[in-house]
Amino acid sequence: MSKQNSREMDFSAWYNDIVLRAELADYAPVKGCMIIRPYGYGIWENIQSILDKMIKSVGVKNAYFPLFIPESFIHKEAEHLTGFSPELAVVTYGGGKELEEKLVVRPTSETIINAMFSKWIQSFRDLPLLINQWANIVRWEMRTRLFLRTTEFLWQEGHTAHADHTEAQEMTLRILSIYEDFMQSVLAIPIIYGRKSEAQRFPGALETYTIEAMMGDKKSLQAGTSHDLGQNFAKPFDITYQTKKNKLEYVWQTSWGVSTRLIGAIVMVHGDDIGLVLPPMIAPIQVVLIPIWKGDEKEKVLQAIHSLEGKFVSNGIYANLPIRFHTDTREEFTPGYKFNEWEMKGVPLRVEIGPRDLKNSTVTIARRDGGERIIVKEGKALEVVISTLEAIQGSLFDKAKRFMEDNTYVVDDWKEFKDKKGFILSHWCGEAKCEEDIQKKTNMTIRCIPINGNVEKGKCILCGKESKMRVVFAKAY
Amino acid sequence: MSKQNSREMDFSAWYNDIVLRAELADYAPVKGCMIIRPYGYGIWENIQSILDKMIKSVGVKNAYFPLFIPESFIHKEAEHLTGFSPELAVVTYGGGKELEEKLVVRPTSETIINAMFSKWIQSFRDLPLLINQWANIVRWEMRTRLFLRTTEFLWQEGHTAHADHTEAQEMTLRILSIYEDFMQSVLAIPIIYGRKSEAQRFPGALETYTIEAMMGDKKSLQAGTSHDLGQNFAKPFDITYQTKKNKLEYVWQTSWGVSTRLIGAIVMVHGDDIGLVLPPMIAPIQVVLIPIWKGDEKEKVLQAIHSLEGKFVSNGIYANLPIRFHTDTREEFTPGYKFNEWEMKGVPLRVEIGPRDLKNSTVTIARRDGGERIIVKEGKALEVVISTLEAIQGSLFDKAKRFMEDNTYVVDDWKEFKDKKGFILSHWCGEAKCEEDIQKKTNMTIRCIPINGNVEKGKCILCGKESKMRVVFAKAY
Repeated sequence: MSKQNSREMDFSAWYNDIVLRAELADYAPVKGCMIIRPYGYGIWENIQSILDKMIKSVGVKNAYFPLFIPESFIHKEAEHLTGFSPELAVVTYGGGKELEEKLVVRPTSETIINAMFSKWIQSFRDLPLLINQWANIVRWEMRTRLFLRTTEFLWQEGHTAHADHTEAQEMTLRILSIYEDFMQSVLAIPIIYGRKSEAQRFPGALETYTIEAMMGDKKSLQAGTSHDLGQNFAKPFDITYQTKKNKLEYVWQTSWGVSTRLIGAIVMVHGDDIGLVLPPMIAPIQVVLIPIWKGDEKEKVLQAIHSLEGKFVSNGIYANLPIRFHTDTREEFTPGYKFNEWEMKGVPLRVEIGPRDLKNSTVTIARRDGGERIIVKEGKALEVVISTLEAIQGSLFDKAKRFMEDNTYVVDDWKEFKDKKGFILSHWCGEAKCEEDIQKKTNMTIRCIPINGNVEKGKCILCGKESKMRVVFAKAY
Repeated sequence: MSKQNSREMDFSAWYNDIVLRAELADYAPVKGCMIIRPYGYGIWENIQSILDKMIKSVGVKNAYFPLFIPESFIHKEAEHLTGFSPELAVVTYGGGKELEEKLVVRPTSETIINAMFSKWIQSFRDLPLLINQWANIVRWEMRTRLFLRTTEFLWQEGHTAHADHTEAQEMTLRILSIYEDFMQSVLAIPIIYGRKSEAQRFPGALETYTIEAMMGDKKSLQAGTSHDLGQNFAKPFDITYQTKKNKLEYVWQTSWGVSTRLIGAIVMVHGDDIGLVLPPMIAPIQVVLIPIWKGDEKEKVLQAIHSLEGKFVSNGIYANLPIRFHTDTREEFTPGYKFNEWEMKGVPLRVEIGPRDLKNSTVTIARRDGGERIIVKEGKALEVVISTLEAIQGSLFDKAKRFMEDNTYVVDDWKEFKDKKGFILSHWCGEAKCEEDIQKKTNMTIRCIPINGNVEKGKCILCGKESKMRVVFAKAY
């Protein structure tokens, strides 16, 4: 295998190397697009299946809306149009003819979904209406990075309508807390959350909430957002309902989403110079079994492996699901070569059975995250595998959390502010002009404004005017 | 509720009524597109989850390829281009600029996937390569019908590459048999299968195999296809591999798919004048529980319902999955209204608990397919629910099979041929000209040519020339 770029020396080259070498994704022949290869898609399938259950647990149902949006729809909400128009892909020909109305390939589905909500919602009995869709999205991007920023990507987008603003606000925050829980307990990625500043808000939202995660290079990745749309779409799309008292009112709405970008986050948070490191809960393969033999030991070693496989199949449950294991019986590669390959692919656990194990009725277990190899009695193997998967999941989170905390700073001095890398908690006057100047001078943006942050008087890190609260600055993807 | 069109009087209007009233789908603001509403999408999710496991069981893995295909790719395989060009939607603007190369929205993904296969496949070790994707597809359609023919639809498309033709042919047929099994044992829809005539073949395929199902109006629906592509894409896309003997050879390929059209088939095969009838295995709600009370019985009735729900949750397994049940506690509707609504929505089983049930410790169970109501002891309820779901699944299949058989005819007389409705087994000389003339005169097409049909000498139903085998004619969707 070719030499891997070092994470420390060139984070960006290291990231691309891993994504390509672990066969998570590949560049497409179409500029800015990517192919999600089976190993990367396997991670996405695990993300989908867990997150989908969490979203459905609050009463949301899945549906599917069209890919194409009539151009006029995008014009209905002025801010929304301004926000998205430079990113649109437009279909002008269909069925061999030039179209009368151009069709926009969805950059997000607020407009088309709200056109339907206006038809479906008549009375208070139709509320709340809680819809989600898993779909592909197109936003024309100039500078692309596999998973992080591509012209086409996959995501889920939730869209809800409620009878009053309080209920919509609660929904926005309930989803934010589902995202927080999912990131931390499933992807083992610690996050911070809060409101976006006006400049960073979703086009058309009253308020955008975000979860932000610190990557291995100390930059922030916006991992998911949840928007309180107020009545900004309800009014232009005329989504009204009859109240119990027979009055006609506009609904209150939310929208929220996470995307295949999360796969990039997993790489950048947990990966190391050897390659990927996958949290067990979303690893396509959680355990790789490797038989090791010379000459005539083959039969017996394979027999021991098959007996272990049998135990995995009948009793191997981790995180309420059957353990996903794979046995690597290829004869054209040495065990050493296989170790390297599966380590590069980030498989959490390796179980070896070799001649010495045979003699002692043991198996050898190696953790991808720590590298330690332990030898356990064959009868204890499954139990140890399960508890070790649990331990790895927890330990990846703890390590990432420590890293985030070690690189979070409270800063009141401009020089220090300019030089620090990580999450910088500093005072900001609240003016968009200052926010813009700070970005120009430091390349840092306000990642989030804590929702229930401690009121603390201070002075804006740039202009020195009064401020009531610290916000989180960082360089971002 | 408004009056439902009758299935007998106007099948087509009846179909549209059901799709809209059961809230399976709705018309989109974009011509020819549809919205799959939560109840319809719930059926699709069940189809996906079962079929996905069956496809994976033969070693296929999921991936995701780009929506956009460079126009030049479509030109590489001449027949493919000719077949698809009238149906293409074309993106000409992106990021505010006119594009240098136009992008086609995928009408199927052979070309883009094969461009990648050519990069990924180097040696015999990389074969077979077995890939599937679940994706949205766009084919510009002039006359559209919800689920059956829409400009955008959802499907799965499998694409495989093999070292030799025999293996590719086996794959084509293995998938055909998975589709057959899925249709019959999951959707309870009997099918016939066989080869397509040259005129009906997929553009670029050596051979197309099809599964065909008889709808309630005796027309045939092509429910899925599996193509032997030979080397027709391998050559223009230069997909070669190094053999064990170090020679360079082109791969042999297959592709195959089924789509959201299957939801239309479920409606048209099982539905009746009351509404939808869903096979339990794919019903979003398999059992609806309806409490019935007057005045002060409410508490007690709800208590009995909750106790039954508890049993469903702890021990309710049907077809290896937890039973999907829903309790309708709405107070603004009468029990009769609820019965009608859930019958229209095709829920296989209704369980009622009313005052008389309370007194006798019984529940009342009504089957959607037969209408019979039986009263069983509360302690037996779950057991009877499970066995009745099984019975309904089997009985829907048997009924549809009988209908297909009753409307399948062996015909040797032209007058009879013209007048019969259903699957018509007649002799055909093998000439495309005769096939075309038959279609012009009768609107019937050759749905399939039996793969291992009995050799039987006869005379072509139209021209009278010699024929070796009967083929299946029918009008089709």
